[in-house]
Amino acid sequence: MALMSEHVSKKFDSELEELRSRVMQMGGLVETQISHAVEAFMNGDKDGFERVIADDHQVNAFEVSIDDDCAHLIARRQPTAGDLRMVMAVSKIVTDLERIGDEADKIARMGRQIYQRDHLLVPRLNDVRIMGDAGVRMLRDVLDAFVRLDPVAAARIVREDKTVDENFRSFLRVLITYMMEDPRTISTVLDIVFVSKALERIGDHVKNIAESVIYIVKGKNVRHIGIDQLEREALSDGTQS
Amino acid sequence: MALMSEHVSKKFDSELEELRSRVMQMGGLVETQISHAVEAFMNGDKDGFERVIADDHQVNAFEVSIDDDCAHLIARRQPTAGDLRMVMAVSKIVTDLERIGDEADKIARMGRQIYQRDHLLVPRLNDVRIMGDAGVRMLRDVLDAFVRLDPVAAARIVREDKTVDENFRSFLRVLITYMMEDPRTISTVLDIVFVSKALERIGDHVKNIAESVIYIVKGKNVRHIGIDQLEREALSDGTQS
Repeated sequence: MALMSEHVSKKFDSELEELRSRVMQMGGLVETQISHAVEAFMNGDKDGFERVIADDHQVNAFEVSIDDDCAHLIARRQPTAGDLRMVMAVSKIVTDLERIGDEADKIARMGRQIYQRDHLLVPRLNDVRIMGDAGVRMLRDVLDAFVRLDPVAAARIVREDKTVDENFRSFLRVLITYMMEDPRTISTVLDIVFVSKALERIGDHVKNIAESVIYIVKGKNVRHIGIDQLEREALSDGTQS
Repeated sequence: MALMSEHVSKKFDSELEELRSRVMQMGGLVETQISHAVEAFMNGDKDGFERVIADDHQVNAFEVSIDDDCAHLIARRQPTAGDLRMVMAVSKIVTDLERIGDEADKIARMGRQIYQRDHLLVPRLNDVRIMGDAGVRMLRDVLDAFVRLDPVAAARIVREDKTVDENFRSFLRVLITYMMEDPRTISTVLDIVFVSKALERIGDHVKNIAESVIYIVKGKNVRHIGIDQLEREALSDGTQS
Protein backbone atom coordinates (compact mmCIF):
# COMPACT_ATOMS: atom_id res chain seq x y z
CA MET A 1 0.00 0.00 0.00
CA ALA A 2 2.97 2.28 0.62
CA LEU A 3 3.67 2.33 -3.09
CA MET A 4 0.18 3.36 -4.03
CA SER A 5 -0.93 6.96 -4.26
CA GLU A 6 -4.10 7.79 -2.38
CA HIS A 7 -5.91 8.12 -5.69
CA VAL A 8 -4.89 4.67 -6.89
CA SER A 9 -5.71 3.17 -3.53
CA LYS A 10 -9.21 4.69 -3.58
CA LYS A 11 -9.72 3.40 -7.08
CA PHE A 12 -8.64 -0.03 -5.92
CA ASP A 13 -11.05 0.05 -2.99
CA SER A 14 -13.91 0.87 -5.30
CA GLU A 15 -12.88 -1.94 -7.64
CA LEU A 16 -12.88 -4.39 -4.74
CA GLU A 17 -16.29 -3.09 -3.73
CA GLU A 18 -17.54 -3.62 -7.29
CA LEU A 19 -16.15 -7.18 -7.24
CA ARG A 20 -18.00 -7.97 -4.02
CA SER A 21 -21.21 -6.49 -5.33
CA ARG A 22 -20.99 -8.64 -8.49
CA VAL A 23 -20.57 -11.73 -6.29
CA MET A 24 -23.76 -10.70 -4.50
CA GLN A 25 -25.57 -10.28 -7.83
CA MET A 26 -24.42 -13.71 -8.95
CA GLY A 27 -25.42 -15.16 -5.57
CA GLY A 28 -28.89 -13.63 -5.88
CA LEU A 29 -29.31 -15.17 -9.33
CA VAL A 30 -28.22 -18.60 -8.06
CA GLU A 31 -30.61 -18.30 -5.12
CA THR A 32 -33.44 -17.62 -7.59
CA GLN A 33 -32.39 -20.61 -9.67
CA ILE A 34 -32.69 -22.99 -6.69
CA SER A 35 -36.03 -21.47 -5.63
CA HIS A 36 -37.44 -21.75 -9.13
CA ALA A 37 -36.17 -25.31 -9.60
CA VAL A 38 -37.70 -26.49 -6.32
CA GLU A 39 -40.92 -24.59 -6.94
CA ALA A 40 -41.27 -26.11 -10.44
CA PHE A 41 -40.54 -29.51 -8.94
CA MET A 42 -43.35 -29.08 -6.39
CA ASN A 43 -45.86 -28.08 -9.07
CA GLY A 44 -44.69 -30.21 -11.99
CA ASP A 45 -44.34 -26.92 -13.84
CA LYS A 46 -42.81 -27.69 -17.23
CA ASP A 47 -42.28 -24.05 -18.17
CA GLY A 48 -40.58 -23.56 -14.82
CA PHE A 49 -38.10 -26.34 -15.57
CA GLU A 50 -37.33 -24.88 -18.99
CA ARG A 51 -36.75 -21.43 -17.52
CA VAL A 52 -34.24 -22.72 -14.96
CA ILE A 53 -32.38 -24.69 -17.65
CA ALA A 54 -32.39 -21.72 -20.02
CA ASP A 55 -31.08 -19.33 -17.36
CA ASP A 56 -28.12 -21.49 -16.35
CA HIS A 57 -25.93 -19.77 -18.96
CA GLN A 58 -26.33 -16.49 -17.05
CA VAL A 59 -24.80 -18.11 -13.97
CA ASN A 60 -21.94 -19.48 -16.09
CA ALA A 61 -21.33 -16.07 -17.65
CA PHE A 62 -21.10 -14.50 -14.18
CA GLU A 63 -18.51 -17.08 -13.14
CA VAL A 64 -16.26 -16.50 -16.14
CA SER A 65 -16.56 -12.74 -15.97
CA ILE A 66 -15.94 -12.37 -12.22
CA ASP A 67 -13.07 -14.83 -12.39
CA ASP A 68 -11.48 -12.77 -15.16
CA ASP A 69 -11.96 -9.66 -13.02
CA CYS A 70 -10.07 -11.38 -10.20
CA ALA A 71 -7.10 -12.16 -12.44
CA HIS A 72 -7.06 -8.61 -13.84
CA LEU A 73 -7.34 -7.06 -10.40
CA ILE A 74 -4.37 -9.05 -9.13
CA ALA A 75 -2.30 -8.30 -12.24
CA ARG A 76 -2.99 -4.56 -12.21
CA ARG A 77 -3.24 -3.79 -8.50
CA GLN A 78 -0.97 -6.43 -6.99
CA PRO A 79 -2.91 -6.57 -3.74
CA THR A 80 -1.43 -8.13 -0.62
CA ALA A 81 -2.72 -9.38 2.75
CA GLY A 82 -6.47 -9.10 3.25
CA ASP A 83 -7.14 -7.59 -0.17
CA LEU A 84 -5.35 -10.46 -1.89
CA ARG A 85 -7.21 -12.99 0.25
CA MET A 86 -10.49 -11.35 -0.76
CA VAL A 87 -9.70 -11.66 -4.47
CA MET A 88 -8.37 -15.24 -4.20
CA ALA A 89 -11.43 -16.22 -2.15
CA VAL A 90 -13.84 -14.60 -4.60
CA SER A 91 -12.28 -16.70 -7.37
CA LYS A 92 -13.15 -19.82 -5.37
CA ILE A 93 -16.57 -18.56 -4.25
CA VAL A 94 -17.76 -18.00 -7.83
CA THR A 95 -16.76 -21.58 -8.68
CA ASP A 96 -18.93 -22.83 -5.81
CA LEU A 97 -21.80 -20.55 -6.85
CA GLU A 98 -21.56 -21.86 -10.40
CA ARG A 99 -21.69 -25.45 -9.13
CA ILE A 100 -24.78 -24.60 -7.07
CA GLY A 101 -26.31 -23.24 -10.28
CA ASP A 102 -25.42 -26.57 -11.93
CA GLU A 103 -27.26 -28.45 -9.20
CA ALA A 104 -30.36 -26.26 -9.72
CA ASP A 105 -30.10 -27.07 -13.43
CA LYS A 106 -29.87 -30.80 -12.61
CA ILE A 107 -32.95 -30.59 -10.37
CA ALA A 108 -34.87 -28.97 -13.23
CA ARG A 109 -33.73 -31.65 -15.70
CA MET A 110 -34.61 -34.46 -13.30
CA GLY A 111 -37.97 -32.82 -12.63
CA ARG A 112 -38.72 -32.59 -16.33
CA GLN A 113 -37.84 -36.27 -16.76
CA ILE A 114 -39.93 -37.39 -13.79
CA TYR A 115 -43.05 -35.51 -14.86
CA GLN A 116 -42.68 -36.63 -18.47
CA ARG A 117 -42.62 -40.21 -17.27
CA ASP A 118 -45.47 -40.31 -14.81
CA HIS A 119 -46.48 -37.37 -12.72
CA LEU A 120 -48.90 -39.39 -10.59
CA LEU A 121 -46.13 -41.42 -9.04
CA VAL A 122 -44.05 -38.63 -7.54
CA PRO A 123 -43.90 -39.32 -3.81
CA ARG A 124 -42.62 -37.34 -0.83
CA LEU A 125 -42.65 -33.98 -2.51
CA ASN A 126 -42.70 -32.24 0.82
CA ASP A 127 -39.29 -33.57 1.86
CA VAL A 128 -37.85 -32.10 -1.33
CA ARG A 129 -39.36 -28.74 -0.43
CA ILE A 130 -37.94 -28.86 3.07
CA MET A 131 -34.43 -29.62 1.78
CA GLY A 132 -34.80 -27.01 -0.96
CA ASP A 133 -35.93 -24.31 1.44
CA ALA A 134 -33.00 -25.12 3.72
CA GLY A 135 -30.60 -24.78 0.77
CA VAL A 136 -32.00 -21.39 -0.24
CA ARG A 137 -31.87 -20.13 3.34
CA MET A 138 -28.29 -21.32 3.85
CA LEU A 139 -27.18 -19.70 0.60
CA ARG A 140 -28.81 -16.44 1.62
CA ASP A 141 -27.14 -16.62 5.05
CA VAL A 142 -23.69 -17.29 3.61
CA LEU A 143 -23.99 -14.40 1.14
CA ASP A 144 -24.98 -12.25 4.08
CA ALA A 145 -21.93 -13.48 6.05
CA PHE A 146 -19.77 -12.69 3.00
CA VAL A 147 -21.02 -9.14 2.66
CA ARG A 148 -20.72 -8.48 6.40
CA LEU A 149 -17.44 -10.44 6.65
CA ASP A 150 -18.85 -12.31 9.62
CA PRO A 151 -16.82 -15.45 10.47
CA VAL A 152 -19.11 -16.43 13.35
CA ALA A 153 -22.17 -16.57 11.10
CA ALA A 154 -20.04 -18.49 8.58
CA ALA A 155 -19.09 -21.08 11.22
CA ARG A 156 -22.77 -21.53 12.08
CA ILE A 157 -23.48 -22.35 8.44
CA VAL A 158 -20.67 -24.91 8.32
CA ARG A 159 -22.30 -26.69 11.24
CA GLU A 160 -25.72 -26.46 9.62
CA ASP A 161 -24.43 -28.46 6.65
CA LYS A 162 -24.17 -31.48 8.95
CA THR A 163 -27.95 -31.31 9.46
CA VAL A 164 -28.43 -31.23 5.68
CA ASP A 165 -26.33 -34.40 5.35
CA GLU A 166 -28.37 -36.13 8.08
CA ASN A 167 -31.65 -35.10 6.45
CA PHE A 168 -30.39 -36.48 3.15
CA ARG A 169 -29.51 -39.83 4.71
CA SER A 170 -32.85 -40.22 6.46
CA PHE A 171 -34.73 -39.14 3.32
CA LEU A 172 -32.73 -41.75 1.41
CA ARG A 173 -33.91 -44.48 3.78
CA VAL A 174 -37.52 -43.44 3.19
CA LEU A 175 -37.02 -43.49 -0.58
CA ILE A 176 -35.53 -47.00 -0.40
CA THR A 177 -38.68 -48.30 1.32
CA TYR A 178 -40.76 -46.75 -1.49
CA MET A 179 -38.74 -48.60 -4.08
CA MET A 180 -39.02 -51.87 -2.19
CA GLU A 181 -42.76 -51.59 -1.70
CA ASP A 182 -43.49 -50.85 -5.34
CA PRO A 183 -40.68 -51.71 -7.76
CA ARG A 184 -42.57 -50.01 -10.62
CA THR A 185 -41.64 -46.70 -9.00
CA ILE A 186 -37.90 -47.42 -8.98
CA SER A 187 -36.94 -45.20 -11.93
CA THR A 188 -38.92 -42.25 -10.65
CA VAL A 189 -37.78 -42.65 -7.06
CA LEU A 190 -34.18 -42.93 -8.24
CA ASP A 191 -34.58 -39.56 -9.96
CA ILE A 192 -35.85 -38.18 -6.67
CA VAL A 193 -32.75 -39.66 -5.02
CA PHE A 194 -30.66 -37.61 -7.48
CA VAL A 195 -32.72 -34.49 -6.77
CA SER A 196 -32.11 -34.85 -3.04
CA LYS A 197 -28.44 -35.62 -3.73
CA ALA A 198 -28.29 -32.33 -5.67
CA LEU A 199 -29.81 -30.52 -2.68
CA GLU A 200 -27.30 -32.17 -0.37
CA ARG A 201 -24.46 -30.99 -2.64
CA ILE A 202 -25.82 -27.44 -2.54
CA GLY A 203 -25.23 -27.62 1.20
CA ASP A 204 -21.63 -28.73 0.58
CA HIS A 205 -20.94 -25.79 -1.73
CA VAL A 206 -22.53 -23.34 0.72
CA LYS A 207 -20.23 -24.79 3.37
CA ASN A 208 -17.22 -24.20 1.09
CA ILE A 209 -18.28 -20.57 0.67
CA ALA A 210 -18.61 -20.22 4.44
CA GLU A 211 -15.06 -21.52 4.82
CA SER A 212 -13.89 -18.97 2.25
CA VAL A 213 -15.48 -16.19 4.33
CA ILE A 214 -13.54 -17.35 7.40
CA TYR A 215 -10.36 -17.45 5.28
CA ILE A 216 -10.87 -13.87 4.15
CA VAL A 217 -11.36 -12.53 7.67
CA LYS A 218 -9.04 -14.76 9.67
CA GLY A 219 -6.34 -15.45 7.07
CA LYS A 220 -6.53 -19.10 7.95
CA ASN A 221 -7.50 -22.02 5.80
CA VAL A 222 -10.13 -23.85 7.88
CA ARG A 223 -11.02 -26.59 5.42
CA HIS A 224 -10.60 -30.08 6.83
CA ILE A 225 -9.87 -29.04 10.41
CA GLY A 226 -13.13 -30.29 11.93
CA ILE A 227 -16.09 -28.27 13.06
CA ASP A 228 -15.04 -27.73 16.68
CA GLN A 229 -11.66 -26.26 15.82
CA LEU A 230 -13.26 -24.27 13.00
CA GLU A 231 -15.65 -22.66 15.46
CA ARG A 232 -12.77 -21.78 17.77
CA GLU A 233 -10.93 -20.16 14.86
CA ALA A 234 -14.02 -18.20 13.84
CA LEU A 235 -14.55 -16.93 17.37
CA SER A 236 -10.89 -16.14 18.04
CA ASP A 237 -9.81 -12.53 18.46
CA GLY A 238 -7.10 -12.65 15.83
CA THR A 239 -8.04 -10.90 12.63
CA GLN A 240 -5.51 -10.75 9.84
CA SER A 241 -4.94 -7.44 8.16
CA MET B 1 9.51 -8.82 -15.18
CA ALA B 2 11.39 -5.63 -16.08
CA LEU B 3 11.42 -4.70 -12.41
CA MET B 4 12.93 -7.97 -11.29
CA SER B 5 16.63 -8.55 -11.09
CA GLU B 6 17.85 -11.66 -12.85
CA HIS B 7 18.51 -13.29 -9.50
CA VAL B 8 14.98 -12.66 -8.23
CA SER B 9 13.51 -13.81 -11.52
CA LYS B 10 15.47 -17.08 -11.40
CA LYS B 11 14.36 -17.64 -7.84
CA PHE B 12 10.78 -17.07 -8.92
CA ASP B 13 11.09 -19.54 -11.81
CA SER B 14 12.35 -22.20 -9.45
CA GLU B 15 9.50 -21.47 -7.03
CA LEU B 16 6.99 -21.90 -9.87
CA GLU B 17 8.72 -25.14 -10.82
CA GLU B 18 8.45 -26.32 -7.21
CA LEU B 19 4.74 -25.42 -7.19
CA ARG B 20 4.12 -27.45 -10.33
CA SER B 21 6.05 -30.39 -9.00
CA ARG B 22 4.00 -30.38 -5.79
CA VAL B 23 0.81 -30.45 -7.90
CA MET B 24 2.21 -33.52 -9.65
CA GLN B 25 2.95 -35.16 -6.29
CA MET B 26 -0.57 -34.45 -5.10
CA GLY B 27 -1.95 -35.74 -8.41
CA GLY B 28 0.04 -38.96 -8.04
CA LEU B 29 -1.34 -39.48 -4.56
CA VAL B 30 -4.92 -38.89 -5.74
CA GLU B 31 -4.38 -41.32 -8.63
CA THR B 32 -3.25 -43.95 -6.12
CA GLN B 33 -6.31 -43.26 -3.98
CA ILE B 34 -8.69 -43.95 -6.88
CA SER B 35 -6.78 -47.10 -7.91
CA HIS B 36 -6.76 -48.44 -4.37
CA ALA B 37 -10.44 -47.64 -3.81
CA VAL B 38 -11.50 -49.40 -7.02
CA GLU B 39 -9.16 -52.33 -6.37
CA ALA B 40 -10.52 -52.77 -2.84
CA PHE B 41 -14.02 -52.56 -4.26
CA MET B 42 -13.30 -55.35 -6.75
CA ASN B 43 -11.91 -57.61 -4.05
CA GLY B 44 -14.10 -56.68 -1.09
CA ASP B 45 -10.85 -55.82 0.66
CA LYS B 46 -11.72 -54.32 4.04
CA ASP B 47 -8.17 -53.28 4.85
CA GLY B 48 -7.99 -51.61 1.45
CA PHE B 49 -11.08 -49.51 2.23
CA GLU B 50 -9.64 -48.47 5.59
CA ARG B 51 -6.33 -47.46 4.01
CA VAL B 52 -8.01 -45.22 1.43
CA ILE B 53 -10.15 -43.59 4.12
CA ALA B 54 -7.14 -43.12 6.40
CA ASP B 55 -5.02 -41.56 3.64
CA ASP B 56 -7.59 -38.96 2.62
CA HIS B 57 -6.13 -36.49 5.13
CA GLN B 58 -2.87 -36.48 3.14
CA VAL B 59 -4.75 -35.26 0.08
CA ASN B 60 -6.43 -32.56 2.15
CA ALA B 61 -3.09 -31.45 3.60
CA PHE B 62 -1.66 -31.09 0.09
CA GLU B 63 -4.59 -28.93 -0.94
CA VAL B 64 -4.26 -26.54 1.98
CA SER B 65 -0.49 -26.33 1.70
CA ILE B 66 -0.30 -25.78 -2.07
CA ASP B 67 -3.12 -23.26 -1.90
CA ASP B 68 -1.23 -21.33 0.77
CA ASP B 69 1.86 -21.44 -1.45
CA CYS B 70 -0.16 -19.88 -4.27
CA ALA B 71 -1.28 -16.98 -2.09
CA HIS B 72 2.25 -16.41 -0.79
CA LEU B 73 3.75 -16.58 -4.28
CA ILE B 74 1.34 -13.96 -5.54
CA ALA B 75 1.89 -11.70 -2.52
CA ARG B 76 5.70 -11.89 -2.63
CA ARG B 77 6.38 -12.14 -6.37
CA GLN B 78 3.43 -10.29 -7.85
CA PRO B 79 3.47 -12.33 -11.05
CA THR B 80 1.64 -11.17 -14.16
CA ALA B 81 0.49 -12.71 -17.46
CA GLY B 82 1.26 -16.41 -17.88
CA ASP B 83 2.93 -16.76 -14.47
CA LEU B 84 -0.11 -15.32 -12.72
CA ARG B 85 -2.42 -17.57 -14.73
CA MET B 86 -0.33 -20.56 -13.69
CA VAL B 87 -0.65 -19.72 -9.99
CA MET B 88 -4.37 -18.89 -10.20
CA ALA B 89 -4.98 -22.11 -12.13
CA VAL B 90 -3.00 -24.21 -9.65
CA SER B 91 -5.20 -22.86 -6.88
CA LYS B 92 -8.23 -24.21 -8.77
CA ILE B 93 -6.55 -27.46 -9.83
CA VAL B 94 -5.75 -28.47 -6.25
CA THR B 95 -9.41 -27.93 -5.32
CA ASP B 96 -10.42 -30.33 -8.11
CA LEU B 97 -7.75 -32.83 -7.04
CA GLU B 98 -8.98 -32.68 -3.47
CA ARG B 99 -12.56 -33.32 -4.62
CA ILE B 100 -11.35 -36.33 -6.64
CA GLY B 101 -9.73 -37.57 -3.44
CA ASP B 102 -13.10 -37.08 -1.72
CA GLU B 103 -14.78 -39.24 -4.35
CA ALA B 104 -12.18 -42.00 -3.81
CA ASP B 105 -12.92 -41.75 -0.09
CA LYS B 106 -16.66 -42.04 -0.80
CA ILE B 107 -16.09 -45.13 -2.98
CA ALA B 108 -14.16 -46.75 -0.12
CA ARG B 109 -16.89 -45.89 2.40
CA MET B 110 -19.63 -47.21 0.08
CA GLY B 111 -17.58 -50.35 -0.54
CA ARG B 112 -17.15 -50.93 3.18
CA GLN B 113 -20.90 -50.54 3.69
CA ILE B 114 -21.80 -52.86 0.80
CA TYR B 115 -19.49 -55.66 1.89
CA GLN B 116 -20.55 -55.34 5.51
CA ARG B 117 -24.15 -55.81 4.42
CA ASP B 118 -23.93 -58.72 2.05
CA HIS B 119 -20.93 -59.37 -0.09
CA LEU B 120 -22.62 -62.12 -2.11
CA LEU B 121 -25.06 -59.69 -3.66
CA VAL B 122 -22.63 -57.28 -5.30
CA PRO B 123 -23.43 -57.34 -9.02
CA ARG B 124 -21.72 -55.89 -12.09
CA LEU B 125 -18.35 -55.41 -10.51
CA ASN B 126 -16.69 -55.32 -13.88
CA ASP B 127 -18.50 -52.14 -14.96
CA VAL B 128 -17.15 -50.45 -11.84
CA ARG B 129 -13.64 -51.52 -12.79
CA ILE B 130 -14.05 -50.22 -16.34
CA MET B 131 -15.23 -46.82 -15.12
CA GLY B 132 -12.54 -46.76 -12.43
CA ASP B 133 -9.76 -47.57 -14.90
CA ALA B 134 -11.02 -44.84 -17.21
CA GLY B 135 -10.94 -42.35 -14.34
CA VAL B 136 -7.37 -43.24 -13.39
CA ARG B 137 -6.21 -43.04 -17.01
CA MET B 138 -7.90 -39.66 -17.56
CA LEU B 139 -6.36 -38.26 -14.39
CA ARG B 140 -2.91 -39.46 -15.47
CA ASP B 141 -3.43 -37.93 -18.92
CA VAL B 142 -4.53 -34.56 -17.55
CA LEU B 143 -1.56 -34.40 -15.16
CA ASP B 144 0.64 -35.16 -18.14
CA ALA B 145 -1.06 -32.37 -20.15
CA PHE B 146 -0.49 -30.04 -17.18
CA VAL B 147 3.20 -30.80 -16.88
CA ARG B 148 3.75 -30.50 -20.66
CA LEU B 149 1.35 -27.53 -20.94
CA ASP B 150 -0.41 -29.27 -23.83
CA PRO B 151 -3.80 -27.70 -24.63
CA VAL B 152 -4.56 -30.19 -27.43
CA ALA B 153 -4.22 -33.17 -25.10
CA ALA B 154 -6.34 -31.26 -22.57
CA ALA B 155 -9.10 -30.72 -25.16
CA ARG B 156 -9.08 -34.46 -25.92
CA ILE B 157 -9.68 -35.16 -22.22
CA VAL B 158 -12.61 -32.73 -22.10
CA ARG B 159 -14.22 -34.66 -24.94
CA GLU B 160 -13.49 -37.98 -23.24
CA ASP B 161 -15.56 -36.88 -20.26
CA LYS B 162 -18.64 -37.09 -22.48
CA THR B 163 -17.99 -40.83 -22.89
CA VAL B 164 -17.74 -41.19 -19.12
CA ASP B 165 -21.15 -39.54 -18.75
CA GLU B 166 -22.67 -41.85 -21.36
CA ASN B 167 -21.16 -44.92 -19.69
CA PHE B 168 -22.61 -43.78 -16.40
CA ARG B 169 -26.09 -43.39 -17.87
CA SER B 170 -26.07 -46.80 -19.53
CA PHE B 171 -24.67 -48.44 -16.37
CA LEU B 172 -27.48 -46.75 -14.44
CA ARG B 173 -30.09 -48.35 -16.70
CA VAL B 174 -28.55 -51.77 -16.05
CA LEU B 175 -28.56 -51.16 -12.30
CA ILE B 176 -32.25 -50.17 -12.42
CA THR B 177 -33.16 -53.51 -14.02
CA TYR B 178 -31.27 -55.29 -11.21
CA MET B 179 -33.32 -53.44 -8.61
CA MET B 180 -36.56 -54.23 -10.41
CA GLU B 181 -35.79 -57.92 -10.80
CA ASP B 182 -34.86 -58.42 -7.17
CA PRO B 183 -36.05 -55.68 -4.80
CA ARG B 184 -34.03 -57.25 -1.96
CA THR B 185 -30.92 -55.94 -3.68
CA ILE B 186 -32.15 -52.33 -3.76
CA SER B 187 -30.00 -50.99 -0.90
CA THR B 188 -26.84 -52.59 -2.22
CA VAL B 189 -27.47 -51.61 -5.83
CA LEU B 190 -28.21 -48.06 -4.73
CA ASP B 191 -24.79 -47.96 -3.09
CA ILE B 192 -23.31 -49.12 -6.40
CA VAL B 193 -25.24 -46.29 -8.07
CA PHE B 194 -23.44 -43.89 -5.72
CA VAL B 195 -20.09 -45.52 -6.47
CA SER B 196 -20.61 -45.07 -10.20
CA LYS B 197 -21.85 -41.52 -9.58
CA ALA B 198 -18.56 -40.87 -7.75
CA LEU B 199 -16.64 -42.22 -10.74
CA GLU B 200 -18.67 -40.02 -13.06
CA ARG B 201 -17.83 -36.99 -10.91
CA ILE B 202 -14.14 -37.85 -11.05
CA GLY B 203 -14.49 -37.40 -14.82
CA ASP B 204 -16.07 -33.97 -14.24
CA HIS B 205 -13.18 -32.84 -12.04
CA VAL B 206 -10.61 -34.14 -14.51
CA LYS B 207 -12.42 -32.12 -17.17
CA ASN B 208 -12.18 -29.01 -14.98
CA ILE B 209 -8.43 -29.56 -14.65
CA ALA B 210 -8.13 -29.94 -18.42
CA GLU B 211 -9.93 -26.61 -18.85
CA SER B 212 -7.48 -25.02 -16.39
CA VAL B 213 -4.57 -26.29 -18.51
CA ILE B 214 -6.06 -24.62 -21.59
CA TYR B 215 -6.54 -21.43 -19.56
CA ILE B 216 -2.88 -21.41 -18.51
CA VAL B 217 -1.58 -21.81 -22.06
CA LYS B 218 -4.16 -19.87 -24.06
CA GLY B 219 -5.13 -17.23 -21.52
CA LYS B 220 -8.75 -17.92 -22.29
CA ASN B 221 -11.46 -19.22 -20.03
CA VAL B 222 -12.96 -22.13 -21.98
CA ARG B 223 -15.48 -23.31 -19.42
CA HIS B 224 -19.05 -23.40 -20.72
CA ILE B 225 -18.20 -22.65 -24.35
CA GLY B 226 -19.05 -26.07 -25.77
CA ILE B 227 -16.66 -28.79 -26.86
CA ASP B 228 -16.37 -27.77 -30.54
CA GLN B 229 -15.35 -24.21 -29.79
CA LEU B 230 -13.09 -25.43 -26.99
CA GLU B 231 -11.22 -27.67 -29.43
CA ARG B 232 -10.80 -24.75 -31.85
CA GLU B 233 -9.37 -22.63 -29.03
CA ALA B 234 -6.99 -25.40 -28.00
CA LEU B 235 -5.76 -25.86 -31.56
CA SER B 236 -5.48 -22.14 -32.34
CA ASP B 237 -2.05 -20.61 -32.88
CA GLY B 238 -2.48 -17.89 -30.33
CA THR B 239 -0.52 -18.51 -27.15
CA GLN B 240 -0.66 -15.88 -24.43
CA SER B 241 2.61 -14.83 -22.89
